[in-house]
Amino acid sequence: MFPMQPIGFVKSPYQETRQVPKGCGARHEAEGWLEILPEFAAGLTDIEGFSHLFVIWVFDRSAGFELMGTPPTDDRPHGVFATRSPRRPNPLGLTVVRLLGREGNRLSVAGVDMLDGTPILDLKPYLSSIPAEELRRGWLAEAEAHKSQAPS
Amino acid sequence: MFPMQPIGFVKSPYQETRQVPKGCGARHEAEGWLEILPEFAAGLTDIEGFSHLFVIWVFDRSAGFELMGTPPTDDRPHGVFATRSPRRPNPLGLTVVRLLGREGNRLSVAGVDMLDGTPILDLKPYLSSIPAEELRRGWLAEAEAHKSQAPS
Repeated sequence: MFPMQPIGFVKSPYQETRQVPKGCGARHEAEGWLEILPEFAAGLTDIEGFSHLFVIWVFDRSAGFELMGTPPTDDRPHGVFATRSPRRPNPLGLTVVRLLGREGNRLSVAGVDMLDGTPILDLKPYLSSIPAEELRRGWLAEAEAHKSQAPS
Repeated sequence: MFPMQPIGFVKSPYQETRQVPKGCGARHEAEGWLEILPEFAAGLTDIEGFSHLFVIWVFDRSAGFELMGTPPTDDRPHGVFATRSPRRPNPLGLTVVRLLGREGNRLSVAGVDMLDGTPILDLKPYLSSIPAEELRRGWLAEAEAHKSQAPS
C-alpha cells in the first residue's frame, strides 16, 4: 500500500455531490481556489506561467468501489476504468483546471468539479493535447449521439 | 493519510530511469503493457472504445521529495508542482497513453514513460483537449525557445 497525504484542499462552491454538473454537455466553469498547505508552498514557484494544471485529488466522501457502474451520461453500465465514477478501487480524481492567478499559497482556478474541502494530492503542469482528430471517446460519444437524437 | 493499492503493473522496455527519454523534444512512443490484476479486470469493460487513457501511477523507485528542483529540460530550478519531477510530496505519476488493444486483463499501449514493474493506481478515459491556442506552457516554453536558439 502507498500512503498519500494532502498537500492542500479545494475551496469550491459545491457542498454536495448533487450540485456538481454531470452528464452530457456538463460544463465545469465554476471558479474556486486550490489552497496549498504552507509547508508545500515553495513547490508552487513558477506555476503562474502555465495556463492549465492537472489536479490529482481524493474522492474523500466516496466509500468502496464497484467495477461496473452506470454513469450519469448513459443508461448502460460500463467498467469503472472507462468512466469517471467516484467509486474506484483507489478513489483518485483528476481535473484539468484553468489557472487564473496566484495569491501566495492559494491558486485561483476555473473548472472546479470537486466538493468543497476536497484533499489535493498533487498538481502538475498541463503540457500538451491530443489532437481532436486522433481522439476516440468510446461509449461516451455513442451516448451523446444517442441523446442528441432523442426527442427533447 | 490515504492508502492506495496497485490495481496492476506496467510492462515497459525501461529498466532504469536513465533509459527513459527526457528533456526538450523527448518523444514517448515506447510500447508496453498495462497488466491489470485479475480481481480488477471487470473494470476494463468498454475501455477498448477510447483511443487514449490517463494512467495514474507511483514513482515507486523515488525516495523523498524536494520542493525546488532543476528539471532535465532547463538549467534553472522550478517548483516541484510546475514540473514532472519524480521527487514529489506524493510520488504520483500521470501519463497519457494511446490504447492499441486489449487482451483480457492486459492493455497494449504506446507512449509508455514508466519503468518496468511500475505500480498502477488508476486508469481513466482521456476525454478532451485544451485547444493549442489557449495553452501556455510557462518556463518550459521559455527553456525550449532558449535551447532552440543556442548553437548546436
